[in-house]
Amino acid sequence: MQVAIVLYPGFTSMDVIGPYEVLGRLPDTEVVFVAEKPSLVLNDLKSLSINVDATLDDVPEPDVVLIGGGPGQTGQMADGKLHEWLRAVDRTAAWTTAACTGSLILAGAGLLTGRRATTHWHALEQLAELGSKPVKERVVIDGHYATAAGVSAGIDMALTLAGKIAGDEEAQTVQLIIEYAPEPPYDAGSPSTAPTAVVERTMRKLSSRFPS
Amino acid sequence: MQVAIVLYPGFTSMDVIGPYEVLGRLPDTEVVFVAEKPSLVLNDLKSLSINVDATLDDVPEPDVVLIGGGPGQTGQMADGKLHEWLRAVDRTAAWTTAACTGSLILAGAGLLTGRRATTHWHALEQLAELGSKPVKERVVIDGHYATAAGVSAGIDMALTLAGKIAGDEEAQTVQLIIEYAPEPPYDAGSPSTAPTAVVERTMRKLSSRFPS
Repeated sequence: MQVAIVLYPGFTSMDVIGPYEVLGRLPDTEVVFVAEKPSLVLNDLKSLSINVDATLDDVPEPDVVLIGGGPGQTGQMADGKLHEWLRAVDRTAAWTTAACTGSLILAGAGLLTGRRATTHWHALEQLAELGSKPVKERVVIDGHYATAAGVSAGIDMALTLAGKIAGDEEAQTVQLIIEYAPEPPYDAGSPSTAPTAVVERTMRKLSSRFPS
Repeated sequence: MQVAIVLYPGFTSMDVIGPYEVLGRLPDTEVVFVAEKPSLVLNDLKSLSINVDATLDDVPEPDVVLIGGGPGQTGQMADGKLHEWLRAVDRTAAWTTAACTGSLILAGAGLLTGRRATTHWHALEQLAELGSKPVKERVVIDGHYATAAGVSAGIDMALTLAGKIAGDEEAQTVQLIIEYAPEPPYDAGSPSTAPTAVVERTMRKLSSRFPS
């Protein structure tokens, strides 16, 4: 199985590393990070750069394609090379997937039109504006499209996919290897559980990240 | 605040990216990835390489130091440059931290002697052999040392630290930004909850990773 993970400047690292750590541990699986040009791709926090050797053209038929989100997503919404590639690989991929605001890119490329999908809680309306049917769930599967809510939700999406791809026992083995038995010290991971002051504060912070 | 994250060949990416995504979002925080030599550092799955410009010497007094684990940990147990640096920065750091088998490196450097600490569930005995007091908890804090259980536990550790460093509201804001309201599709993240067949299978897989 070949998994292609798309990187672009301003990506959020956990959006892609979460699913990578899961899918990359499945048997007989090759993961290739791809970008429009071979380069060091700098993340949103501007302190992490990942070296990408493979271009989009180098990976024409991945079995799974994953795109993450992040502030850089806004730079990937114009039709062009990336959108063309996404539409092309989508025709043969077993799974076309996105975490966080990566869903907006898939939707922008026309792949989620009329489909149930999710994204970061702060971007759900934008997903609707792009023709998708936004769903407030952590992992949404519609046809061969899998989308995850914000950032850390990519881990849950990837474990769900791992089960569908390789069976429950393989998926559980990966979960045990990465000791994924989460114990967040706060219950503030969703706008429905976080204190109101925290939600308001976060919305102010994010409004510059996801301009509408 | 300056956070130094140590990379070495064969590191497990989520061990460091989980905490990075949390700590890197705290106000007025600079994160620097450091390695013994400036290089592209290749991970355990051999498909991700992170570019590291800063050497250990470039970062002599970080406020927080973090080291992750992974199969490459076994190559970092000999006394030498890395252990000397860890002992040196530990004298002035507010927090000396490790995720997964990164704790074994801290213990190997003599920093966890007699201290309560944790590590990946499969490596707890090794932590005891290195003079630490292993604890089967997800996040363990003893003095200014914070250690996390396997791989994904680094996220919980970093949120716990974020609260201590910047207050509950900042930590909760980060949790909401990364939408960390986990919903694992299986309850197999701990050897106490995973099916027996999965635990046995995983132990066989890991026995080559953590040779004792």
